[in-house]
Amino acid sequence: MSKPILDVTALPPPDPAPLAAAWQREATLTKPEGALGRLEEVTAHLCAWQGRHPPRLDRVEVHVFAGRHGVVAQGVSAYPAAVTDQMVRNFRKGGAAINQLARSSGARLLVHDPFPHWTTRDWTRSAAMDPAECAAAVGAGRRAIGEDVDLLAIGEMGIGNTATAAAVCAALLGGSGREWCGAGTGLDADGIRRKAAVVDAGLARHQDALDDPERVLQALGGFELAAMAGCILEARRRRIPVLLDGFVTGAAAAVLFRLDPDAVAHCLAGHVSAEHAHRALLGRLGLQPLLDLEMRLGEGSGAALAIQVVRAALACHTGMASFAEAGVADRPTGREGC
Amino acid sequence: MSKPILDVTALPPPDPAPLAAAWQREATLTKPEGALGRLEEVTAHLCAWQGRHPPRLDRVEVHVFAGRHGVVAQGVSAYPAAVTDQMVRNFRKGGAAINQLARSSGARLLVHDPFPHWTTRDWTRSAAMDPAECAAAVGAGRRAIGEDVDLLAIGEMGIGNTATAAAVCAALLGGSGREWCGAGTGLDADGIRRKAAVVDAGLARHQDALDDPERVLQALGGFELAAMAGCILEARRRRIPVLLDGFVTGAAAAVLFRLDPDAVAHCLAGHVSAEHAHRALLGRLGLQPLLDLEMRLGEGSGAALAIQVVRAALACHTGMASFAEAGVADRPTGREGC
Repeated sequence: MSKPILDVTALPPPDPAPLAAAWQREATLTKPEGALGRLEEVTAHLCAWQGRHPPRLDRVEVHVFAGRHGVVAQGVSAYPAAVTDQMVRNFRKGGAAINQLARSSGARLLVHDPFPHWTTRDWTRSAAMDPAECAAAVGAGRRAIGEDVDLLAIGEMGIGNTATAAAVCAALLGGSGREWCGAGTGLDADGIRRKAAVVDAGLARHQDALDDPERVLQALGGFELAAMAGCILEARRRRIPVLLDGFVTGAAAAVLFRLDPDAVAHCLAGHVSAEHAHRALLGRLGLQPLLDLEMRLGEGSGAALAIQVVRAALACHTGMASFAEAGVADRPTGREGC
Repeated sequence: MSKPILDVTALPPPDPAPLAAAWQREATLTKPEGALGRLEEVTAHLCAWQGRHPPRLDRVEVHVFAGRHGVVAQGVSAYPAAVTDQMVRNFRKGGAAINQLARSSGARLLVHDPFPHWTTRDWTRSAAMDPAECAAAVGAGRRAIGEDVDLLAIGEMGIGNTATAAAVCAALLGGSGREWCGAGTGLDADGIRRKAAVVDAGLARHQDALDDPERVLQALGGFELAAMAGCILEARRRRIPVLLDGFVTGAAAAVLFRLDPDAVAHCLAGHVSAEHAHRALLGRLGLQPLLDLEMRLGEGSGAALAIQVVRAALACHTGMASFAEAGVADRPTGREGC
């Protein structure tokens, strides 16, 4: 047997000591127990994966991976394929939403377009990638992360990639094109029906690959999906907490999840997008989104915005006074306190 | 007839020209139409109420109003009444969650404790405030806002005030204590039942006041609720957009809403809290929360965190390139684009 492209063996566990320290400190802070809700969970998550209490957010990176999809020829997107190139240039010139959102969140934006002259094959006719191409894309994702990074946000750009993500999700998790296809960049009802039929054709074409998540990624995926899977897995190996973006990013995480649910235990869902199947996908991955703002842009936009929630969580955890420091009564006392 | 304490007549309308300019620019930016979801609505809201395109977020203020509640004697809170004083001191020393969240959001925090030596009367026995006291509290709220403020976030502190807010909501919007009472700072099921019975006793005691929102505020409210109502109304008069915090802030807004729904048209719901009845209250006010992070702290914490969403919305609106500037195809072309 050949070595797997996505090796999910021997992944390091989260660190229980800083996790316990986080909850211990949380209980001393001047607020009713649990009153900061998910902010408290976020801090605990950082501690467990960074292996450090208090956690740090000195270096936060947003990684956006681009890919081009042969399946666009089947009419699955409201925008022409050329928009992928145009948007990558827009990212590099600072004009896209993700540039503004990464800057607002104090994060460094890194745009990866590992194969600017390649397009995956139309997966209704053949496998999107061969094993070597898939491995190269995974490798590009694995090498993307900088040194001493405290938190990653991960997103993508690729005209046609919600169709590709729908095919990957259906292959990995069951269901047909209809369940997993939505409007993407703005299809109407007819367009969504055609997209679902294209996904069903892809599933039928690659029937024999559906039991193997890695073969699903090769057959029905895309370069940016493979790169995101590699990046998320490398973060897992280095115990860097990850904020996932939308539906396509979730599909990349689902490949790892199907190999081993523990491979995405370091991930938080930055947001739930307005793309039709994203909420269902997060449910299958056991993730509850931090934000729900009806965004459906991709580019890492929802994950980048969620960095602000993570920063706020840490600011409360490190900056708040304890009951003892502030001279605040921390427990009910007497009749009045019932 | 005496002059109303909360005068909702002759309120200025939102400005349609900058609102139209916001949507016009939004349509030119490098993203599918509507892909930034609620961020686009937020920007439009700022433009309409500030009367300016692009809008500004140079001066953002978080106002926290404190109040003391005689009804605490009925055992409606998990914490002793003294915690109100202690937390106000904690705010002033910078040790509370709201200090960290306001700073993270680049906002100025102002803590108002207009009547530090007064406690409202127990509203199961008599009216919480007389008209002069209520008017004084409303006036304190109206005078709280600084000059040239671009956005306000509004919150509160007051042991016992979720019971008071529940009584105000039930009086204004119908229903009994059971529908409007939750755990507050941390009551158990027995405590919540007792709290609901206390609210029902308050409603019975002030039966004759229930048709008049201003009399409801006097009879069943508190100083911080009255001050928040005054502050929200003054912001409305000055066309300053407002982010509401949790259940108690929502109850103050509900007083204005019952006087005239247009009196809170400048408000956004910063978040929905984990306090039992907050989601239902927002539904009655026609507000959809920006955040849902299971927070239940008050202090303006959810509203302060939501400032970051508003800032991100503005950063995208002003910083993004247009399709023309970036050389990105903005419309479907040919067969491929179906």
